[in-house]
Amino acid sequence: MKPVSVSVIGGGSWGTTVGHLAAHNAKTLLWARAPETVVEINESNVNRRYLEGYDLHPDLTATADLEEAVRCADVLVMGVPSQAFRETLGRVGEFLRPWVPVVSLTKGLEQGTRKRMSQLIHEVLPGHPAAVLTGPNLAKEILVGDAAAAVIATPDPVVAETLQAVFATDRFRVYSNPDVIGCELGGALKNVIAIASGMADGLGTGDNTRAAVITRGLAELTALGVAMGGQQVTFAGLAGMGDLIATCISPQSRNRHVGEQLGKGRTIEEIVDEMNMVAEGVKTSTAVMELAEEYEVDVPITAQVRAVCHEGLSASEAYDGLMGRQSGVEHPAYE
Amino acid sequence: MKPVSVSVIGGGSWGTTVGHLAAHNAKTLLWARAPETVVEINESNVNRRYLEGYDLHPDLTATADLEEAVRCADVLVMGVPSQAFRETLGRVGEFLRPWVPVVSLTKGLEQGTRKRMSQLIHEVLPGHPAAVLTGPNLAKEILVGDAAAAVIATPDPVVAETLQAVFATDRFRVYSNPDVIGCELGGALKNVIAIASGMADGLGTGDNTRAAVITRGLAELTALGVAMGGQQVTFAGLAGMGDLIATCISPQSRNRHVGEQLGKGRTIEEIVDEMNMVAEGVKTSTAVMELAEEYEVDVPITAQVRAVCHEGLSASEAYDGLMGRQSGVEHPAYE
Repeated sequence: MKPVSVSVIGGGSWGTTVGHLAAHNAKTLLWARAPETVVEINESNVNRRYLEGYDLHPDLTATADLEEAVRCADVLVMGVPSQAFRETLGRVGEFLRPWVPVVSLTKGLEQGTRKRMSQLIHEVLPGHPAAVLTGPNLAKEILVGDAAAAVIATPDPVVAETLQAVFATDRFRVYSNPDVIGCELGGALKNVIAIASGMADGLGTGDNTRAAVITRGLAELTALGVAMGGQQVTFAGLAGMGDLIATCISPQSRNRHVGEQLGKGRTIEEIVDEMNMVAEGVKTSTAVMELAEEYEVDVPITAQVRAVCHEGLSASEAYDGLMGRQSGVEHPAYE
Repeated sequence: MKPVSVSVIGGGSWGTTVGHLAAHNAKTLLWARAPETVVEINESNVNRRYLEGYDLHPDLTATADLEEAVRCADVLVMGVPSQAFRETLGRVGEFLRPWVPVVSLTKGLEQGTRKRMSQLIHEVLPGHPAAVLTGPNLAKEILVGDAAAAVIATPDPVVAETLQAVFATDRFRVYSNPDVIGCELGGALKNVIAIASGMADGLGTGDNTRAAVITRGLAELTALGVAMGGQQVTFAGLAGMGDLIATCISPQSRNRHVGEQLGKGRTIEEIVDEMNMVAEGVKTSTAVMELAEEYEVDVPITAQVRAVCHEGLSASEAYDGLMGRQSGVEHPAYE
């Protein structure tokens, strides 16, 4: 591969970590809003605000100048939250050279429109190949060098292969997948199931329950995702099942944490007040219910999570509600 | 449903637990070899040897008389280890009434022939419907009343529906599935992946690695299972993914424990000497490699587990071996 220059827009924990990965393979520049983050990365290879105590690749550099970051990019990586994604794309568009692929790191749907981030890339920056980097990737574990696997999703196999080589290291395996819709929906929908899994943990149930919630949760996430145009096999892979498992079992997952606190009987207001970050799944549960109604897909776990997060149902009532459903056929193969 | 009489053959932890479940819905008799187990169940509703400290359903009764247990059965449940399964079926056949369904609880393949338990039922007891009860079901969690979900697999939907009603309680959901092959293979093959997942835990890696091992492990288990005649969708369900997750995350899993000890640098001989039970996955890894060669399926995780268990490779060498592989396409949809 010809050497490329990579720019990452966003100095949060995941954007910084992806910058660290790319710096193994390419000249990499991180755009961060906060001047102190820029100085820290350039002078000490650390990002204290989001990744205190973790060393970044010494060749990773940072800038607070968006134009500088975008102009030099052969690959542009977008690591900004979903609510800022469209507006940031607009600002970036002014400086971006033609043909440069735009890679989304963001797992979520745009509020109101319920659009995926790659749809926003196509709308705001038509003509630029859109790609998604996703999978079971907790930032801090990657920075300490634990093995992890991810997926780069984009329709063109040549772009996919180049991007694999940009992000892969000897401890970070990158698979390619042409199913962008499935990969994005896996990342967006799993957070609701993670809240359900956390609720079961908070209620004190065991690994049988957790395995059943994850498995049935993936089944409903897959049914909705396939109805929306994703491929079944993607949801069984790293961007679906893999990401769902990591989010449901990791003590670092914010969504799982919210569920656990709900399971212990606290209210959503108390929990949200106490966290200084948003757990995406709380908002996503409403969007997913709307999508499920639009596509006529049954999503019993999501329905209970929405009711607990937004309608005052208690976690134990939700649990009883799920248990009281009629058990059916696991898949419709009886004729 | 007309009342049926259920007999469970085998007083180990899982046979006893399934007897406890059936006693909620039907007259249930457990056959146990040990006379003290029979007395304990009949007089105190406990099985101290396998389930110390857990109360069983008061209506569950036990006998040491195999003929008595089998003659009265409208549903016969086989809870004996794989190496005793064929021989026990032979003894049972003498007393079993015609048409009575035989339900296997055993997750494993017959040594030497590599046959599934339902194949043995068809061979030894032709004419009897064969069924399998499987899923993410840790016995002790079920006895304390935690929610769990399982699958009853059998080709005939009428038999399936009757058996659902025999085993389901308000905390134990039973789904039906016609894919007997897939359900049995899921249960047999997952133990090898659980050893791999435990090895990663023992090496001190995190939740990214665990999620990736489980996800890629399910992918190879599914590829082999589909080649052998199972259905893809079954491996994504409770008997595949669900059982795999529970086995890979539960501290109670023997196979995960073996892997964890291997990851900490101990030898397989030391570990096996210390346990008074066998971890099925150690033996199964050899059978799975033979099947993978026969069906020409690539099973890189199983290959590393077999090499650690039987060829003196260290867990950290196995881990490096997996990481050194070329990352490819996650599914073959690029054209």
